[in-house]
Amino acid sequence: MQNESETFVTRRDLLSLVGTVAGGAAMYQAMTSLGFASESGYKGPIKLEGDTRGTSVLVLGAGLAGMTAALELRKAGYKVEVLEFNSRPGGRNWTLRGGDSFTELGGATQTCEFEQGLYLNPGPWRIPYHHRALLDYCKRLGVALEPFIQLNHNALLHGSDAFGGKPQRIRDIKTDFQGHVSELLAKATQQGKLDEMVSAEDKAILLQALRSWGVLDKNYAYSASLDSADFRGYARDPGGGLGAAPVAGEPVGLSDILTSRLWRYLQNFALYQFQTTMFQPVGGMDMIGKAFAREVGDLIRYDAKVTRIQQDHGGVTVSYLNAKTPAAPQLAKADWCICTIPLSILSQIPVDVGPRMKAAIDAVPYASSVKIGLQFKRRFWEEDEAIYGGISYTDLPIRQISYPSSGFNRSGRGVLLGAYVYEGANSFEFTSMNPADRVARAVDFGSSIHPQYKTEFENGIAVAWHRVPFTLGCAGNWSDKAREEHYDNLCRIDGRIALAGEHASYIPAWQEGAILSSLDAITRLHERVVKS
Amino acid sequence: MQNESETFVTRRDLLSLVGTVAGGAAMYQAMTSLGFASESGYKGPIKLEGDTRGTSVLVLGAGLAGMTAALELRKAGYKVEVLEFNSRPGGRNWTLRGGDSFTELGGATQTCEFEQGLYLNPGPWRIPYHHRALLDYCKRLGVALEPFIQLNHNALLHGSDAFGGKPQRIRDIKTDFQGHVSELLAKATQQGKLDEMVSAEDKAILLQALRSWGVLDKNYAYSASLDSADFRGYARDPGGGLGAAPVAGEPVGLSDILTSRLWRYLQNFALYQFQTTMFQPVGGMDMIGKAFAREVGDLIRYDAKVTRIQQDHGGVTVSYLNAKTPAAPQLAKADWCICTIPLSILSQIPVDVGPRMKAAIDAVPYASSVKIGLQFKRRFWEEDEAIYGGISYTDLPIRQISYPSSGFNRSGRGVLLGAYVYEGANSFEFTSMNPADRVARAVDFGSSIHPQYKTEFENGIAVAWHRVPFTLGCAGNWSDKAREEHYDNLCRIDGRIALAGEHASYIPAWQEGAILSSLDAITRLHERVVKS
Repeated sequence: MQNESETFVTRRDLLSLVGTVAGGAAMYQAMTSLGFASESGYKGPIKLEGDTRGTSVLVLGAGLAGMTAALELRKAGYKVEVLEFNSRPGGRNWTLRGGDSFTELGGATQTCEFEQGLYLNPGPWRIPYHHRALLDYCKRLGVALEPFIQLNHNALLHGSDAFGGKPQRIRDIKTDFQGHVSELLAKATQQGKLDEMVSAEDKAILLQALRSWGVLDKNYAYSASLDSADFRGYARDPGGGLGAAPVAGEPVGLSDILTSRLWRYLQNFALYQFQTTMFQPVGGMDMIGKAFAREVGDLIRYDAKVTRIQQDHGGVTVSYLNAKTPAAPQLAKADWCICTIPLSILSQIPVDVGPRMKAAIDAVPYASSVKIGLQFKRRFWEEDEAIYGGISYTDLPIRQISYPSSGFNRSGRGVLLGAYVYEGANSFEFTSMNPADRVARAVDFGSSIHPQYKTEFENGIAVAWHRVPFTLGCAGNWSDKAREEHYDNLCRIDGRIALAGEHASYIPAWQEGAILSSLDAITRLHERVVKS
Repeated sequence: MQNESETFVTRRDLLSLVGTVAGGAAMYQAMTSLGFASESGYKGPIKLEGDTRGTSVLVLGAGLAGMTAALELRKAGYKVEVLEFNSRPGGRNWTLRGGDSFTELGGATQTCEFEQGLYLNPGPWRIPYHHRALLDYCKRLGVALEPFIQLNHNALLHGSDAFGGKPQRIRDIKTDFQGHVSELLAKATQQGKLDEMVSAEDKAILLQALRSWGVLDKNYAYSASLDSADFRGYARDPGGGLGAAPVAGEPVGLSDILTSRLWRYLQNFALYQFQTTMFQPVGGMDMIGKAFAREVGDLIRYDAKVTRIQQDHGGVTVSYLNAKTPAAPQLAKADWCICTIPLSILSQIPVDVGPRMKAAIDAVPYASSVKIGLQFKRRFWEEDEAIYGGISYTDLPIRQISYPSSGFNRSGRGVLLGAYVYEGANSFEFTSMNPADRVARAVDFGSSIHPQYKTEFENGIAVAWHRVPFTLGCAGNWSDKAREEHYDNLCRIDGRIALAGEHASYIPAWQEGAILSSLDAITRLHERVVKS
């Protein structure tokens, strides 16, 4: 799952959130020259060289952080064992398909009824092009990728009180807002109102640029024409043969766009983390977890619920129960421990670490998030509305509808993401409902955007992350203050224990953060081992 | 192939071109209300009802227009025969793979040396979501589609004289231009300079919107910060573990962007015809032609070069030669004729039509276009530069480099589009070279954008459309004046002959135009038959 809070918070909140994630103003640094590519924290496959002298490492958690550690540590010569709470690998790297069932906190069990081949990724569902570590593991482990469509110009923006509740095409709002802004600035420029801000030489080029960028006419006006239609789309598309000339539509007025507040969704698609080209694994996100498990599955003990983590000078001892049939606790021992258990869980387990790391473990609340997958009899969004992939945004509690980025243009059933709520009141509200009600509400709200919901809906499944037993939340939700005070203490090795996971990264809620934090932790652990 | 002229003409030229394609100002029509979706000329599968009484139709050309006609006419009860110049179906719907060879006008023969699974689409290569007819035929004929990536924020914009010849990331130029424009307009707004243009109520929201859209700080300035980095990318990406805080880069100054003129490429991606979500057939564009041929292949006589088209009250008689071993001409007869031969060829064939249609046939020059496919030892654009699909634009004669939209993140060889030139001096220049020189020049130019070219290049193939024997050009290049004078005369049925193809549409150079024109022509032909 990823941070989608920009979909329902104000712009101010988003900026504040970004600042939070990044660790505050202290981190800001203006660089005087631009590199050709931005620098990734991933420099290619890790190399752990040196004699590990039979050292053993116990890894807690078989999510991506844990399995990355297991894979690389074994390759480096360590003896590795992994304890995993679930009966499957992957953790939040998880896909629900027809026949899968899952029980949430509170006891409600859902069984997925999707048709074969259809699925929901309740957790992470897309991969940015700059997540170099994750992409490299996909390549090395043979995980086939396909594009994930984030921005679809033909998807919808919907405000309950905007345009009489009638959804607008993204291409219309985007083109028209840009056109109006360009017109205003061009006119101000022409009227000499920017003379203090723009040089005479630049002014002439600025006017050209605004005309190009805003699709302005020769008088620098943005207006209804086949020129603007060539970007915003037509009232009637150009055709073939006789009587096939195109007809332009009327742009939405600036005042209407402003008061509709639909402009606040436009930059979602431009965020570095959501820019083209994004990916998803062919067949479901858990193809990645499964690929890791092909490598390290033999090291994993499933259904192992960790109840205590102890350490002394000689090593680490972890107590665990069988999560399905709890009996007497069992013990696992090793020289070192990489613990990837989410802080929401770890903070409830007795752990022998110093007060600094313990305070850090306790400092991070976990974000609330809800995802609801809905199966329909047919892909009406494609057939009726020419919407292929992408996301429609709304101010309704479902916040967004995302259309599948696979199976394009096929006949038959389809599953879309009927709600994706991240933090905020709506997320808590959905979490408080029973699963059937969540699905019913998603269908109800969605039908005001797509009336076809009413006749085409078949079944659904709803995951509320605060009720997911193995994480009790979606992802570590660092505040600026908490990060400043605790982040380094969380990441520093305490005795023989090192923590890893998305919570131990500057890319919270992303799989890349989990992998990079794991690579960093095992690198530092390995340095201690070979130097000791 | 499609109209990519916006990549190397001025914005003014583009606007003028758009006007041309659309048929001029007379077509403009402001609509007072916005439809939920724009109206497509395609209303679902064609229904040709009524008794065809054994009527026969001769179709000339087995491109998409011809095969659409053959498929639908046979289904409606007509006796259909198709004559095709090439030894394969599809016409410009064409894919070159390893082992394919092709001889251009002038006699040069190229044999494609691509590794198995790699290909070049010399003609059309992408499908917009609003090309409803083409998409419906893909669905009906079982052609699997995958996304075609047009906009990749991490691809490059390159000006020989801009930034010392150093390519810039699209995300940087896009974010920074938008940021600077927003800052200028916000400041003008704050200073009361827009008071005549914007109401007081709108002004407050406009400032909020500009702050969101332009990623402005609380003082409405666009500047180096982790906020702007969250859109333009970072100097150092956020990472995991210790020492992983992100570092922001320095935005490009407005003056530098303006004088670089890289802004002129920004709207390419926003054009209705190039907007997300676009598609390509899995495995090559000719999967569509092959799918049609599975339906109507039994009706097609290949290697048939039409030399004369005659008609009288009784029917149509077409003379043709075997294109490979020309001997005595053979005759094909039918009651009616659907002729999809490109006008560049048809204007050189004696045709019994009235002076109006004949004048129309002669009125349309064919566009020049060159495409060059280059195979490299590895997908360095992905591995080294994180560029997955999309297009880099340059003012060099190659104009654009397009990275493949399939095989993402795989090891091994890859083929990219090393040049795509549409009209203009560069197109004629490339056309005048022999194929080997075209490829060598593309490698030479491209290496100033991707230095890896020098060591990774293996082989290439170059198609110059003015030298392609079956079209003598890329597509009908209607002028505004020609369309006004001749378009309807081209489309009207002359006796027993109706024309179809992209040239008989308002969507020139696109496959949708070919199909829609064909559906329109056979609809009108059928009306005459059942009413006669």
